[in-house]
Amino acid sequence: MSRVVIDVMGSDLGVQELVKGVAHLSMEPQNDIYMVLVGDAFEISEAFVGIVYHPRFIEIVHAEDFLTQEDAPQKIHTSSGLSISVACELLNQGHADALVSAGNTGGVILGCSKAFQRIEGVKRVGLAAVMPTEKRRGDRKDPFALLMDVGATLHVDADDLRVFALMGSIYSSIVSNNDSPTVALLSNGTESSKGAPEVVEAHQQLLNSSQVNFIGNIEGLDIPRGSADVIVCEGFMGNVVLKLLEGITELAADLAKDAYQSKLVWRLGLTMLSGELKKLRTLTDWKQYGGAPILGFEHVVIKAHGRSNAKAIRNAIRLASKVHRGGLIEQIQNGLTM
Amino acid sequence: MSRVVIDVMGSDLGVQELVKGVAHLSMEPQNDIYMVLVGDAFEISEAFVGIVYHPRFIEIVHAEDFLTQEDAPQKIHTSSGLSISVACELLNQGHADALVSAGNTGGVILGCSKAFQRIEGVKRVGLAAVMPTEKRRGDRKDPFALLMDVGATLHVDADDLRVFALMGSIYSSIVSNNDSPTVALLSNGTESSKGAPEVVEAHQQLLNSSQVNFIGNIEGLDIPRGSADVIVCEGFMGNVVLKLLEGITELAADLAKDAYQSKLVWRLGLTMLSGELKKLRTLTDWKQYGGAPILGFEHVVIKAHGRSNAKAIRNAIRLASKVHRGGLIEQIQNGLTM
Repeated sequence: MSRVVIDVMGSDLGVQELVKGVAHLSMEPQNDIYMVLVGDAFEISEAFVGIVYHPRFIEIVHAEDFLTQEDAPQKIHTSSGLSISVACELLNQGHADALVSAGNTGGVILGCSKAFQRIEGVKRVGLAAVMPTEKRRGDRKDPFALLMDVGATLHVDADDLRVFALMGSIYSSIVSNNDSPTVALLSNGTESSKGAPEVVEAHQQLLNSSQVNFIGNIEGLDIPRGSADVIVCEGFMGNVVLKLLEGITELAADLAKDAYQSKLVWRLGLTMLSGELKKLRTLTDWKQYGGAPILGFEHVVIKAHGRSNAKAIRNAIRLASKVHRGGLIEQIQNGLTM
Repeated sequence: MSRVVIDVMGSDLGVQELVKGVAHLSMEPQNDIYMVLVGDAFEISEAFVGIVYHPRFIEIVHAEDFLTQEDAPQKIHTSSGLSISVACELLNQGHADALVSAGNTGGVILGCSKAFQRIEGVKRVGLAAVMPTEKRRGDRKDPFALLMDVGATLHVDADDLRVFALMGSIYSSIVSNNDSPTVALLSNGTESSKGAPEVVEAHQQLLNSSQVNFIGNIEGLDIPRGSADVIVCEGFMGNVVLKLLEGITELAADLAKDAYQSKLVWRLGLTMLSGELKKLRTLTDWKQYGGAPILGFEHVVIKAHGRSNAKAIRNAIRLASKVHRGGLIEQIQNGLTM
């Protein structure tokens, strides 16, 4: 049985929705995940009223306060009894194996930084994003790739990029059951000489590394094309690119509408496509995936989307458990001391 | 009469195509641009055979060698008689007022760096890109915005970003006849605290500046939306984002085709749209625009697209002349000493 601590506060859809996901998971015949829910105990208990759940798999730990999505993460330093702080402390004390939160992203990173160490050899943690791709990846035909860092840190050096590559590769191999995920650096050209100095240096380091299946530099458009399973870059650029790619579908439609408002054939074409676009979105829906990891801490941390519904949080908890069982932390520790 | 020196070597479509553009421009009734063509004199003369042109506006200066698109720009340091070096030297000696090249971009930047100075107060030059946008910008309803830097330099500091903002704003005001172009910083969020340290610092500097119409931070998707006339960022990120945005139309179609190959309604919709997509591309065609500036040198330098045809190079030459007459260099000098 693996134990996952879940901060149920501060998500967009609220405690009720997350509790529903926990309850569903607890009732699954094969479930062997013990879930520790951290938050307002009264609100959590209320949320369980009238729904079916298996109490053997569920524990509630009270926290007096929480960060909203709008709060500055730094509030962690001045507030006591925040749900994310309590959750991190439970993880730190060995009461759980992994953490899931759909709350304030900066708050999760700062909460972890306060409560526990980074893995030895990791100077900067990385926040990953799961990107829908055109090709199916790995053995389980995942239509997703991992992009990291997308904003846990801003600028990085070559060592950070190399460590991101290693951590992302190990994570991807566990999650996608893929022995040798392909790893690439995001740059402004495919040649090894292209990019900022730290990217050029990391390129050389990764070429000499036997630990990751490095395929070289890729450009931004190669991310959705599925050219690599793991794409590594600094957090500032990663975040800008992530937001761009997330909005592409919407943007293409906007541009088209604006330019051809009066064109009947264009309107007809768009109408015919709109249902299909919706299905494309479903196919590549992050809710299926559950969440993305924050890599580099000495515990498994999964950041679920702020808009997570019951299904998404259930998948995030399953993901956290799978990653823990796959030995993520030990594998990264081994990889960094090799 | 303004005088534009044109390096006619090393473009994708070759000397013949560029000479055609020069010839057309020389025959326009209102033309008052004197054009100095640099390259293989024999090849250039041959290209003029059989086409109509006005010799009064055209001069040919021979150069023995040239950079190809594939050459390393550093070849400039070891080769003599390169067309770009000759062209830059003509500009430096006062034989011309502005430079246009459709050749190797790095070669143009390096050639300028060797031949002449940066404007006082400019630590790093910036390469701009002209991006199609949804909204019409400025008085002449330009459907374009200026993104810079897109790769002349990689990492920058806050001062560089502020100087890019000023130079981009002055250039945009001349080209688009817009007294007060809006200027924004590209970041990972609109709040003033968002972004890498140099972006946060530049944000404060620009807020306190009376020289540019600073509207704050924007995100990547805001570029094609036309949220600002001038968008400023470091060259490494600018280049990655530029390539992403350039490929969006193609990508959306690819993604769609891959996911729904078997869907008749999707295929029908795409077929209906394909003609319109082509028109959208035409509407936002860079060939109309001619080229993008390299800003920060003490001379006007316009980089035309490598694939420039006769029309594109004609527009690039017109653009160079317009920017020179608009007093770009003097305005930047004044702006930086205020």
